[in-house]
Amino acid sequence: MKKLVFVRHGLSEWNALNLFTGWEDVDLSEKGIEEAKEAGKKIKEHQIHFDIAYTSYLKRAIKTCHYILEESDQLWVPEVKSWRLNERHYGALQGLNKKETAEKYGEEQVHEWRRSYDTLPPLIDPTEAKSAVHDPKYAKLDPHSIPGGENLKVTLERALPFWEDHIAPSLINQEAVLVAAHGNSLRALCKHIEDISDDDIMGLEIPTGQPLVYELNDDLSLSKKYYL
Amino acid sequence: MKKLVFVRHGLSEWNALNLFTGWEDVDLSEKGIEEAKEAGKKIKEHQIHFDIAYTSYLKRAIKTCHYILEESDQLWVPEVKSWRLNERHYGALQGLNKKETAEKYGEEQVHEWRRSYDTLPPLIDPTEAKSAVHDPKYAKLDPHSIPGGENLKVTLERALPFWEDHIAPSLINQEAVLVAAHGNSLRALCKHIEDISDDDIMGLEIPTGQPLVYELNDDLSLSKKYYL
Repeated sequence: MKKLVFVRHGLSEWNALNLFTGWEDVDLSEKGIEEAKEAGKKIKEHQIHFDIAYTSYLKRAIKTCHYILEESDQLWVPEVKSWRLNERHYGALQGLNKKETAEKYGEEQVHEWRRSYDTLPPLIDPTEAKSAVHDPKYAKLDPHSIPGGENLKVTLERALPFWEDHIAPSLINQEAVLVAAHGNSLRALCKHIEDISDDDIMGLEIPTGQPLVYELNDDLSLSKKYYL
Repeated sequence: MKKLVFVRHGLSEWNALNLFTGWEDVDLSEKGIEEAKEAGKKIKEHQIHFDIAYTSYLKRAIKTCHYILEESDQLWVPEVKSWRLNERHYGALQGLNKKETAEKYGEEQVHEWRRSYDTLPPLIDPTEAKSAVHDPKYAKLDPHSIPGGENLKVTLERALPFWEDHIAPSLINQEAVLVAAHGNSLRALCKHIEDISDDDIMGLEIPTGQPLVYELNDDLSLSKKYYL
C-alpha cells in the first residue's frame, strides 16, 4: 500500500498576531517548530520511510519539512520545492489584522473571503511594490503566473499541475511521499484526491502538525485516510 | 562572472572526540551550527544569490546547507543531495580514535592513510553489518558502487560524475551555485577545477565554515579564487 503523508505547518509568527499571511514569507514560531518536531517523531514511530519530500517556496513549510526529516532520521531524502504548493495568496488582505479587516469591511464580507470556494479577495496590482512579482523567489516564473490574490478554486488550479507532474508520478513509481505545506494548498489537494464538493471542502480543516496519511492503491485510488 | 561557492561543514560531534568519521552520519556540534550560520551571514553580506545548492547524503553537510540558505534568506532555492558529495569513506578506521589508531598501527601508517593521495585505508567487507551497503540511504544504489573505504583518488573518481552531470551544467546555465560538503569531497573538486597535482593536493586544507568562492568565466575557466 502506498502512503501519501500531508503535514500542515505549525504556528507561524503571524498566526500569533492574527494577521492574514498568504504568500508573505513568515517564519515558524517556537510553538510551530515544536509541532514540526512532534510530527517527525510520530512519523519515525510509525516507521514511514519517504522516497521523496515536497514543500512550498515559503520558509514555514520548508522548515517544517526539514524538522520532520531530521526527527525521523531521513534528512538525506530528496526534497523538491515549488511555488505551486504555496499557501493561498490572500491578495491585498496580506499583512492586515483579521479583526481590523472585519471592522473595516464587515464580518460578513470577511467571512465570505475566508469561507467561500470561489470569491476572490481584493487583489494586489502586479505594479505595486508588495506584489510577489518583485520577489526573487518568483523571478524565473512568467509574471502572468503570479497571482495578485486567490480563492481556493484558483489555489487548486495552480496546485493541480504539481500533483499531476510530480506527486502522483512519485506515488506511482515509489512507496511513500511527504508533502509539507499549508492549510489551503493541502486542502485543495484533499479536494482532488477525495473528490469533495465545492461546498463541502470549505468545512474541511486540517489540523497543524498532525501527519495526515492517505493509503493509496497502485492506481492511486483511495484505500484509507487517517491521522497519526 | 559565475560564482561557485564551496562550504566545508563545521565541527561535528565526532571531530570533538577525535574519531575517524567518513561516511558515519554524525551530527553537527553546537560549534558547527554556529559556523554554518556565520557562513550564511557572510554570503548574505556579499549578496550572493544562489540558483541551486548541492550537498551530500550526510546530515552534517545537509544541515550546513540549510543553515546557510536560511541565514542568507534563500531557503526556497532548489537543493539536490548526492552520495557522490559524501566525505571520503574511511573504511574500517571509521569510529576509531585517531590516537589509538596511531598506537595500534604506528604513526607512520596512520599518516600515510591520512595524507597519501592513493593509499587505501583498511576496507570494510560489504557483508559486515557496519557496511554502508546496509544503510537505507544507499539502498537504491548498485551495491558495487558503495565503497568499503576510499583514498582521495577514489573520492575524486566518484565525485567527478556529479560535477560533470550537475554542478558544471548548472554553472553553464546559471549564475551562482552552492556546494555544502566535506573536507575531502571538496578538496577532490578543487583538484579538478584548479588542476592541482597528486602531490600538491594533499597539502590543500579548506577551513571549516569559510565560504570559498571560485569566480569562473562562461567556459568555466578559473578567473579568481578567494575566501569570504
